[in-house]
Amino acid sequence: MKKQIAILGSTGSIGTQALQVVEEHPDLYEVYALTANNKVELLAEQARKFMPEAVVIANEDKYIQLKEALSDLPIKVYAGTDALCQIVESGPIHIVLTAMVGYAGLRPTINAIKAGKTIALANKETLVVAGELINDLASQYHTPILPVDSEHSAIFQCLERENPVHKIILTASGGPFRTLTMEQLRSVTKEQALKHPNWHMGAKITIDSASMMNKGFEVIEAKWLFGVRPDQIEVVVHPQSVIHSMVEFEDGAVKAQLGVPDMRLPIQYAFSYPRREHLSGERLDFAKYSTLTFEAPDTTRFRNLALAYEALHQGGNMPCIVNAANEVVVSAFLKDQLSFLKMSEVIEKAMSMVPFIKVPTYNDYVETDAETRRIAAELVINGMNK
Amino acid sequence: MKKQIAILGSTGSIGTQALQVVEEHPDLYEVYALTANNKVELLAEQARKFMPEAVVIANEDKYIQLKEALSDLPIKVYAGTDALCQIVESGPIHIVLTAMVGYAGLRPTINAIKAGKTIALANKETLVVAGELINDLASQYHTPILPVDSEHSAIFQCLERENPVHKIILTASGGPFRTLTMEQLRSVTKEQALKHPNWHMGAKITIDSASMMNKGFEVIEAKWLFGVRPDQIEVVVHPQSVIHSMVEFEDGAVKAQLGVPDMRLPIQYAFSYPRREHLSGERLDFAKYSTLTFEAPDTTRFRNLALAYEALHQGGNMPCIVNAANEVVVSAFLKDQLSFLKMSEVIEKAMSMVPFIKVPTYNDYVETDAETRRIAAELVINGMNK
Repeated sequence: MKKQIAILGSTGSIGTQALQVVEEHPDLYEVYALTANNKVELLAEQARKFMPEAVVIANEDKYIQLKEALSDLPIKVYAGTDALCQIVESGPIHIVLTAMVGYAGLRPTINAIKAGKTIALANKETLVVAGELINDLASQYHTPILPVDSEHSAIFQCLERENPVHKIILTASGGPFRTLTMEQLRSVTKEQALKHPNWHMGAKITIDSASMMNKGFEVIEAKWLFGVRPDQIEVVVHPQSVIHSMVEFEDGAVKAQLGVPDMRLPIQYAFSYPRREHLSGERLDFAKYSTLTFEAPDTTRFRNLALAYEALHQGGNMPCIVNAANEVVVSAFLKDQLSFLKMSEVIEKAMSMVPFIKVPTYNDYVETDAETRRIAAELVINGMNK
Repeated sequence: MKKQIAILGSTGSIGTQALQVVEEHPDLYEVYALTANNKVELLAEQARKFMPEAVVIANEDKYIQLKEALSDLPIKVYAGTDALCQIVESGPIHIVLTAMVGYAGLRPTINAIKAGKTIALANKETLVVAGELINDLASQYHTPILPVDSEHSAIFQCLERENPVHKIILTASGGPFRTLTMEQLRSVTKEQALKHPNWHMGAKITIDSASMMNKGFEVIEAKWLFGVRPDQIEVVVHPQSVIHSMVEFEDGAVKAQLGVPDMRLPIQYAFSYPRREHLSGERLDFAKYSTLTFEAPDTTRFRNLALAYEALHQGGNMPCIVNAANEVVVSAFLKDQLSFLKMSEVIEKAMSMVPFIKVPTYNDYVETDAETRRIAAELVINGMNK
């Protein structure tokens, strides 16, 4: 029987690559639902090709356009956030790939967990914002959460049934600004930040990679996915992005998953788990990758990594605050409203201004997110950029 | 219940490190039997410390000396090859660590397999000489064979229940002569050959590492341990010996086991499998190993690697011929009777002179071994060294 897959965020980088995986294995996977925020033309094109049961466009203004584009096809067309959140509950779906950007992933992911659908988690913000809540729900509804982030997939691939993880070594490319001085970082542009040396990704995650907030979020994500303490998670900068991450066991043995940087692999692994299937494309060739290097991350130049660890230590709604403030500053940076280094300053300031809640409920997260966005936006406007 | 362990070759490098593992875990392991070839003082000392049920010295001339050394202790003392081969059949033994050197490991390993004792295989020559026979017996007697070679242990640690191996990437340090020219190799001495850059091992395996015959044997060993074709085994030179070996799966994912070079890890893993236990000592630190490099092996300068692949392709008794000839030439090299590069020449000549047998019996192996030794010794004497 083919696995029925819902792809939330099908027009983004992960979403389009997930469709490539489906295309390579028409005997194994079938697209049940596709959703997107705004890109109505691409969504319609994907729907025409993969013939899902349903498509959802989050932006309700684009409903008519999508409906018309698919009027000759027997595909159900919906619009709006509520529809997007509800579609994942549909009966025949086996796997929900959460590939939307940012905090917006939280509600549909919770719905999918409650509906018992296996989650292929590409939206790390869900775990950053509300890791404890998500873990409790997953355990209550016996819903598997499989990582799609290449680092967490690597760790997941290295786990052993019989042996607990002693330490996680999360590799980081270091991004496009790895070797820049503090002085140079002051004046980097968004165009420079958007040029990642190894991975082609969406704008938000590419900026997060340049600022190393992405790695900070991955540390938080690792805590919730693998049940380890913060001091068991080490970040190592590895500019070639060949070793995707590592696990150290009690006996000192370290296991790693390696490969050319290709997101289709972790996406497919989440779909095919525990089996592996053939995947086309370049294989790891040590003639090409003849030198792998490692260095310690610099949390002075890349303050976000320290802020994320700090948020993880504090717990409660603090990671939610960091995430919301980060979404605001990344958006401002992409609009040239904020300089690169100021992003961390706004986040740190927001961390001290938004009320801390030790044991937040779902509504607390929603309120924290809204309040933080308000405060961070004010900080951006009122001179943090001077 | 403590696992009862027999260590064949307890006075060698692997044997002494195995005893360190036992010493670290007195709650888990107990030494049931110790055997050695010649080193009677060390064997007696080990016996006094670990109080096994029985000890065996292969060299019968040393029996009296051993017997007297242990006369105040309730330890059974035996001598001779037959006793050494029989001791592994003793009732309460759970694991037999085969850490003797060369072809001599074959008979006791067969006995242990037939007695259904789990084999912790450090004596790779057993599989090189008679891999097919050993595999058949292990399958017939349902006896697990767990690798102790660091490379094969690494591969074993990376295996997955659900997914077949697509390719094995066997790492090689390249030994002390990795960067020498052919001209320089002509005049290397045994003292130079005995200085391995990463591993402290016995003389035989250290010379085999310098000549890369060790890697050739590991290729053959990998075939039998993991059931892969020769073309699925790739050797990559990795001078830092941090990645102990790798497995590529169908989807292109490569898994590796890494660590500081420390043979106690694979020894302990074979003892504790499938569990892992704490192991003292240095942990992998990427501040220390900040650069890992990879290069293709050079089978022109290191002809042995090509000869081993050739023997594996031909099958039958050919690997047995290579092994016997290699034991003769290494011994001659260690006695300054043969130059470094001449070793491969003698082996290649022996491969063409000893009668080929496509499907050898155990007796064929015994005869091939004897005949090859005779021919190789003659080649050494009669001018191969000119």
